[in-house]
Amino acid sequence: MSEWIFGINPVNEALYAMPDRCLRLAAVSSGNRVVQDIIRLAQKKGLQVDISEKSRLDRLSKEGHHQGVCLEVKPFPYKDLDVLLRQDEAPEGPILVLDQVQDPQNVGSMLRTAKSVGCKGVVWGKDRQAQVTPAVIRASSGAALQLPVAKVTNLSRALESLQEAGYWVVGLAGEGDQVLYDLNLTGKIAFVIGAEGHGLRSNVRKHCDALAAIPLPGGFESLNAGIAAAGALLEWVRQSRKADSV
Amino acid sequence: MSEWIFGINPVNEALYAMPDRCLRLAAVSSGNRVVQDIIRLAQKKGLQVDISEKSRLDRLSKEGHHQGVCLEVKPFPYKDLDVLLRQDEAPEGPILVLDQVQDPQNVGSMLRTAKSVGCKGVVWGKDRQAQVTPAVIRASSGAALQLPVAKVTNLSRALESLQEAGYWVVGLAGEGDQVLYDLNLTGKIAFVIGAEGHGLRSNVRKHCDALAAIPLPGGFESLNAGIAAAGALLEWVRQSRKADSV
Repeated sequence: MSEWIFGINPVNEALYAMPDRCLRLAAVSSGNRVVQDIIRLAQKKGLQVDISEKSRLDRLSKEGHHQGVCLEVKPFPYKDLDVLLRQDEAPEGPILVLDQVQDPQNVGSMLRTAKSVGCKGVVWGKDRQAQVTPAVIRASSGAALQLPVAKVTNLSRALESLQEAGYWVVGLAGEGDQVLYDLNLTGKIAFVIGAEGHGLRSNVRKHCDALAAIPLPGGFESLNAGIAAAGALLEWVRQSRKADSV
Repeated sequence: MSEWIFGINPVNEALYAMPDRCLRLAAVSSGNRVVQDIIRLAQKKGLQVDISEKSRLDRLSKEGHHQGVCLEVKPFPYKDLDVLLRQDEAPEGPILVLDQVQDPQNVGSMLRTAKSVGCKGVVWGKDRQAQVTPAVIRASSGAALQLPVAKVTNLSRALESLQEAGYWVVGLAGEGDQVLYDLNLTGKIAFVIGAEGHGLRSNVRKHCDALAAIPLPGGFESLNAGIAAAGALLEWVRQSRKADSV
């Protein structure tokens, strides 16, 4: 089933960031120069362009702020969690779990780092979580399109599934009682990252096997969520490399 | 000497991010609702507000896109490099050197991480470098206001000064011939980070004592510059912590 993206920025982002998933553009005939540019861009990418009445765009966008353009796209191919865990072709890297991270910049940054270090995949919930939108894809420099992502209904239940599959689940938390650098991160591991400011939800926290803090001698509040995720993933790289050379 | 910031977003950012450096607002009398909101905000912060002719704002902004508001601010108090190096009250942490990093988000992110890990200070050049603007301050969550920053005329010369002061200068470079995790980072150290995409300029690169790469088993191009900086700074934290406990 396809879905409709609308508004000048989202449509532009989608045409640039995920041309393969774009199906069809609907645009008003009375559009301004920016709308005309979008029409030309869509044509250049070989898409069908429907010049439509504003009333149709109102319908397609469900009365959203479409600014004269709606774009039909194939939905992002989320994986089932058990498919993600079973896939043998994927690298045996860590799994990154996001707990309601809503900022597209942060999510994109984390996906880029996850792809760079060779994560096996990413898991997050369906609610209050930035999904794989064009803004996230762009912030990830395209990495979002190259990573298996599982969108689950219940994140705590997903952590249990990971544990049943042999993963050690480490939550990153400023107030964690263990220091990240004291933990053995080799082997099957999942890192859970909470939203900037909120951190991990208490139920998610309870489902972690360990809560790890990154020591911050500078005494300045906490790290950005994307930096905390990178801290964990790069420490995994360091430890794995050392384990390989032993 | 004070300077003038102009335009709705920059002025708004400055009023929120660095109220202590704001001196006076000049606004047109015919301003729209947003301009009226800015006037009210400035008054609430106790600033003098001059309702002025558009021609005066044209002059203050040097014919810039002022959108009806100009804000006089105290300039950011950059340090001289030798003052930064001499200051005894500053932590003996690493020095972060930026080589023409122009994206305010990246610079803000790096300043936040630098402050969190306890950097002694930051050094960058005067050209093609995002300076401490309201956007950078905001992206740093305010950390930019709590870090000594030296703005130098010649970055290669600054690296020589750091070396003369006993610092080991490590450039982060994807193609570096050493692995970050193989280096001993304890002691006086400076990390040099290049711009996203461009990396380090060749002259800056030549002035580094070592070029270090972060191994990326995922095979996805390079890390974001802010993430690479965090990788180096957090590895410094890890090694220093271990050195302390020996």
